[in-house]
Amino acid sequence: MSHNTFGHLFRVTTWGESHGPALGCVVDGCPPGLALTPEYIQAFLDKRRPGTSRFVTQRQEADEVKILSGVFEDDRTGGPVTTGTPISLMIENTDQRSKDYGEIRDRYRPGHADFSYDAKYGVRDYRGGGRSSARETAARVAAGAVARCALGNGITIRGAVVQIGPHAIDRDKWNWDMVDQNPFWCPDAEMAAKWEDFLDATRKAGSSTGAIVEVHASGVPAGWGAPIYGKLDGELAGAMMSINAVKGVEIGAGFASAALSGEENADEMRGGNDGIRFLSNHNGGVAGGISTGQDVVVRVAIKPTSSILTEVKSVTRDGEDVNVRTKGRHDPCVGIRAVPVAEAMMACVLADAKLRHRGQTGH
Amino acid sequence: MSHNTFGHLFRVTTWGESHGPALGCVVDGCPPGLALTPEYIQAFLDKRRPGTSRFVTQRQEADEVKILSGVFEDDRTGGPVTTGTPISLMIENTDQRSKDYGEIRDRYRPGHADFSYDAKYGVRDYRGGGRSSARETAARVAAGAVARCALGNGITIRGAVVQIGPHAIDRDKWNWDMVDQNPFWCPDAEMAAKWEDFLDATRKAGSSTGAIVEVHASGVPAGWGAPIYGKLDGELAGAMMSINAVKGVEIGAGFASAALSGEENADEMRGGNDGIRFLSNHNGGVAGGISTGQDVVVRVAIKPTSSILTEVKSVTRDGEDVNVRTKGRHDPCVGIRAVPVAEAMMACVLADAKLRHRGQTGH
Amino acid sequence: MSHNTFGHLFRVTTWGESHGPALGCVVDGCPPGLALTPEYIQAFLDKRRPGTSRFVTQRQEADEVKILSGVFEDDRTGGPVTTGTPISLMIENTDQRSKDYGEIRDRYRPGHADFSYDAKYGVRDYRGGGRSSARETAARVAAGAVARCALGNGITIRGAVVQIGPHAIDRDKWNWDMVDQNPFWCPDAEMAAKWEDFLDATRKAGSSTGAIVEVHASGVPAGWGAPIYGKLDGELAGAMMSINAVKGVEIGAGFASAALSGEENADEMRGGNDGIRFLSNHNGGVAGGISTGQDVVVRVAIKPTSSILTEVKSVTRDGEDVNVRTKGRHDPCVGIRAVPVAEAMMACVLADAKLRHRGQTGH
Amino acid sequence: MSHNTFGHLFRVTTWGESHGPALGCVVDGCPPGLALTPEYIQAFLDKRRPGTSRFVTQRQEADEVKILSGVFEDDRTGGPVTTGTPISLMIENTDQRSKDYGEIRDRYRPGHADFSYDAKYGVRDYRGGGRSSARETAARVAAGAVARCALGNGITIRGAVVQIGPHAIDRDKWNWDMVDQNPFWCPDAEMAAKWEDFLDATRKAGSSTGAIVEVHASGVPAGWGAPIYGKLDGELAGAMMSINAVKGVEIGAGFASAALSGEENADEMRGGNDGIRFLSNHNGGVAGGISTGQDVVVRVAIKPTSSILTEVKSVTRDGEDVNVRTKGRHDPCVGIRAVPVAEAMMACVLADAKLRHRGQTGH
Repeated sequence: MSHNTFGHLFRVTTWGESHGPALGCVVDGCPPGLALTPEYIQAFLDKRRPGTSRFVTQRQEADEVKILSGVFEDDRTGGPVTTGTPISLMIENTDQRSKDYGEIRDRYRPGHADFSYDAKYGVRDYRGGGRSSARETAARVAAGAVARCALGNGITIRGAVVQIGPHAIDRDKWNWDMVDQNPFWCPDAEMAAKWEDFLDATRKAGSSTGAIVEVHASGVPAGWGAPIYGKLDGELAGAMMSINAVKGVEIGAGFASAALSGEENADEMRGGNDGIRFLSNHNGGVAGGISTGQDVVVRVAIKPTSSILTEVKSVTRDGEDVNVRTKGRHDPCVGIRAVPVAEAMMACVLADAKLRHRGQTGH
Repeated sequence: MSHNTFGHLFRVTTWGESHGPALGCVVDGCPPGLALTPEYIQAFLDKRRPGTSRFVTQRQEADEVKILSGVFEDDRTGGPVTTGTPISLMIENTDQRSKDYGEIRDRYRPGHADFSYDAKYGVRDYRGGGRSSARETAARVAAGAVARCALGNGITIRGAVVQIGPHAIDRDKWNWDMVDQNPFWCPDAEMAAKWEDFLDATRKAGSSTGAIVEVHASGVPAGWGAPIYGKLDGELAGAMMSINAVKGVEIGAGFASAALSGEENADEMRGGNDGIRFLSNHNGGVAGGISTGQDVVVRVAIKPTSSILTEVKSVTRDGEDVNVRTKGRHDPCVGIRAVPVAEAMMACVLADAKLRHRGQTGH
Repeated sequence: MSHNTFGHLFRVTTWGESHGPALGCVVDGCPPGLALTPEYIQAFLDKRRPGTSRFVTQRQEADEVKILSGVFEDDRTGGPVTTGTPISLMIENTDQRSKDYGEIRDRYRPGHADFSYDAKYGVRDYRGGGRSSARETAARVAAGAVARCALGNGITIRGAVVQIGPHAIDRDKWNWDMVDQNPFWCPDAEMAAKWEDFLDATRKAGSSTGAIVEVHASGVPAGWGAPIYGKLDGELAGAMMSINAVKGVEIGAGFASAALSGEENADEMRGGNDGIRFLSNHNGGVAGGISTGQDVVVRVAIKPTSSILTEVKSVTRDGEDVNVRTKGRHDPCVGIRAVPVAEAMMACVLADAKLRHRGQTGH
Repeated sequence: MSHNTFGHLFRVTTWGESHGPALGCVVDGCPPGLALTPEYIQAFLDKRRPGTSRFVTQRQEADEVKILSGVFEDDRTGGPVTTGTPISLMIENTDQRSKDYGEIRDRYRPGHADFSYDAKYGVRDYRGGGRSSARETAARVAAGAVARCALGNGITIRGAVVQIGPHAIDRDKWNWDMVDQNPFWCPDAEMAAKWEDFLDATRKAGSSTGAIVEVHASGVPAGWGAPIYGKLDGELAGAMMSINAVKGVEIGAGFASAALSGEENADEMRGGNDGIRFLSNHNGGVAGGISTGQDVVVRVAIKPTSSILTEVKSVTRDGEDVNVRTKGRHDPCVGIRAVPVAEAMMACVLADAKLRHRGQTGH
């Protein structure tokens, strides 16, 4: 991870500002010979697209992806496959409404990166947050689709929202089939109903709320991850924390493990004809930085959207006191649209770990 | 972060196994002209050294560091200074007792990396966990001392334990002066007394417990950190998660921010003659991946030591059921000795961010 | 350098195939606040553009560059400046004539990368060489223009052709003012006339010829370059060798230094009021991998264009013998259009070295 | 390549100064399960060791290597094998004679890195050149031995000196069996005799001479190397140029190809029962940055040793004119001892390319 590039062998470089002409990414290191079409990528982008329910931003973006390189007709099937060369993906920005942002040109919005970008660079594209906008995550989602190709069908990655504001799901009611049945990617149908009310109230108040997202990867074989400083959980933590508004990452039992005893936390093992199996998964599928073959389980904490209608105290670029209200069209809870993004980061980290594992061991 | 190297411009490569002849690191990219002595590094190693109280492992290791390269007499002062060339640090292993580990040669200890290393590499140095042992963190602490030199006196990094087992400190009683006054690096004197009883009981039961460690860095100027994939918080998350037994990382309000509203979470700002100041620090000193000038605040969750005297179910390398009790000398709560390690990782991440910031912007 | 990314702090990732919809690059790490317009970049692309004389390929490509990100209006001047975020540059392919290449779909052109790409990837975009085409160098030239901005006005980079086929220039007649006055970037006016005849004959015979290109950088301060494995000359050698058709790189006296004695080769030094100066430059401006303040001088050997009209022996993808003639529109001497490319690589290496030097030393 | 680390998946980090207590390297990324002993590494170090003939420096260094980590007893054979963890190698410095260098503390030796290191770092270990000494190459040779393990028995790497001063070998008399039969690694027995006289005269005059070294790798399969910026020849050029005193690198026909026509330079191909074969190897085993299966052939130009007894003009650190004679014990032709070093760099580049190829393609 360095500047705007993520990964070691499966490398993703993203570019683009919220209100520039386009944004995109270059995916480098994807193995050759994998079927890849714009339609495949588009399906993931559509999950993240704004405007799909009243609980996300009403900005209208088609977010249509174009493949500019790295894919060519296969000799055998005639269909498009990856060639091993860099895959350039581009999404044009179509609904930019820059005028909404004129008034924040010279004032910092608390919680946003306005002040820190200025402190670092001395110049910034203030329109919609410019490079610091969550719009950048569209490129991640596109790259994540390519990563899924590199991982193959044996690995399933899926995410869910497990808490919105103070309202956490009941884990005993977890049902993956529910996740697609509500606008929150919520696996607990009862809680989804509660969130609807909560978010309607939040939205009407011009306020916002935080959330917790959980991502599972199943089918990951034991052995992926490169200790000591390329550990699978270390890479996942870095990847998830790089998503906009994320303030915490945990693996398996995570922070709860602090309160456990060694006996409670032990993931005991048994053998048998079907190979080794674990009797629990407090480790979240990673031990010593290497996958164990269990599900890889990650949770990320997402802070409330910083753009709210309530006036908050701030300063101008010249350091003068000013109060700021953020107009424009914002997600009351960015955690919802973070689900496909967190899935994409999981996919990218795993694809990279898979390729590196081959390079490290020949397996 | 890749394999066994950490950092971009300030780069640390560690090597060594728990029971090999020595362990160490190469610190590459440290700026020239900084005073550096073995004694300076040793002071940090002594904080992490085993055997300092009854609450940590009784293994006896002097952990004496040698500087093998990268330091030379200064023209002006005659004292040793860094030369800009790689600094090689070595610590010899002196108390190894390999015989303790013979019986775990062919059986996996639950919670440890025994199984996953075998799955990855097919061969492992089983003595004391080999490369996966927390003994590797001695090299991190040594590197962290060099990182502090690179940061200079204006930046203070200090850590504390804020929870052991289910017992969390009272944050209103936080007193940094207390941290050195008890064997737990606990900032709350009353809680330290409670932990003493709790850990004595844990130790006598042959059990173990988890913990939460918190690290603060003050004096960090606004502007450090390289979005999008070299964000300061992303790098910190990856660095902290790479520490043995860490299962969660959070910045600022962290997971608690999920339950907050945008109004509650906003770090409002005011101007004035002394420059811009923030009225709260939910962001933990980082916005958009860039430091804000506030204290950088990170918390890490550490799982209970996996080595316990209670028998747990496991398997042999051949997949046969077996029960395992881990004898040997173990920390009942590895969270305590994790404090200087987490401080060291904070120092390394910040030193790297400082150097990169110069390279990115010329500041 | 890794896959399709070049550089450490000033990083260039290129993408695109010869006959795809577009090609381009992402320049990451360029410092903020530098004036940058499409017109500035275009001027360098125009130097490399095909179709400018009868001595280069007649392929017609406007090679018009678009800036898709990383540049925004400056507060003070209103003009576009870099913002420190990734600069995405795109050039659409407009004259592709894929039909010319149909017949080489299943047969390997000797000297080209057809066979080796197939051996590596098992699939390739055969049209015009796909990713292995020298068309990729347009992206390098665009990136090089950005690198020149990062270097600033104090550093001048300029290249020349010093040998075409067996005909080398007379170095005593070197005149930089001549370089723009002939279609060969030749600094020796008499030799330029000779080359005209030689290349006309080569072209009419459907043959091709090799060349040697020399690039000078003046104004580079002493101290850039990072020993041991980031030496300035090491980085230059890697960068130049990565250019299509380059088979050799030398610095300063280069291969000729093998025949010299230590006395002849010594770059003696003298002091004085204007600082230290060297009495010769056999070292080519680099000692111990670090710049000395003298001109950095690099020469690269370029093999003859592999695409010739003469039939040569080859094989099909199925390993059957076949004879190949390469039709299409080719440069009789790719060395000519290599000049702006080699200049661009020099610029990129130096920009990276400049930024790294700051990060390493704070200077 | 960055700072003091070389390679991507097979990574070598070297450390140490000429006159410090020790030097060494950490080899990270070597696959597990490969037999590795100190004796195996030592054999390569002995080829490079000083004091083996009157034509190399008379410094007496045992150069005895110790393996400090990364190797453990194999379950099956009981012998030491790599474990996939970092391999730390150390060589203690035993014959340092620092007193020889006291007088160059404040004066720059022309051709050496004294001035440029000072310009960069402002402080340097002047004893024997410190970090810039060719003594660092001992660590490369040790790493190269590990790289050969990673490559396996199917790949043979061997080097020779092909020119000393103005005296080049007759390539028609090339006999690999001769290379070990003279103190110059010369494949042409007649020329070896001539060099003996030439170097005796050079040595007695207190002068020095340059040389050209050629390295061949056979058995490299087609497909290794990662275009565009990780090309096999690009990596080789960077690696070779990073060796002390190297001023030029060429692949295959190299600079001579500039004078050739496309017909002369074409490496024609034929099929047949034994697979594809090439009728010549102007490309030196690399096309489009990817290996072709032919021998990889590299030549490097080495400048004359800068340390000579003749007085040359120079300056002090304060910029005052001074004349410098370099006493001490020096190689009259560093090209001779460069052979095992260039072989080692070839081995490291190929090992890295092998591992990356797996990671890129799964082959």
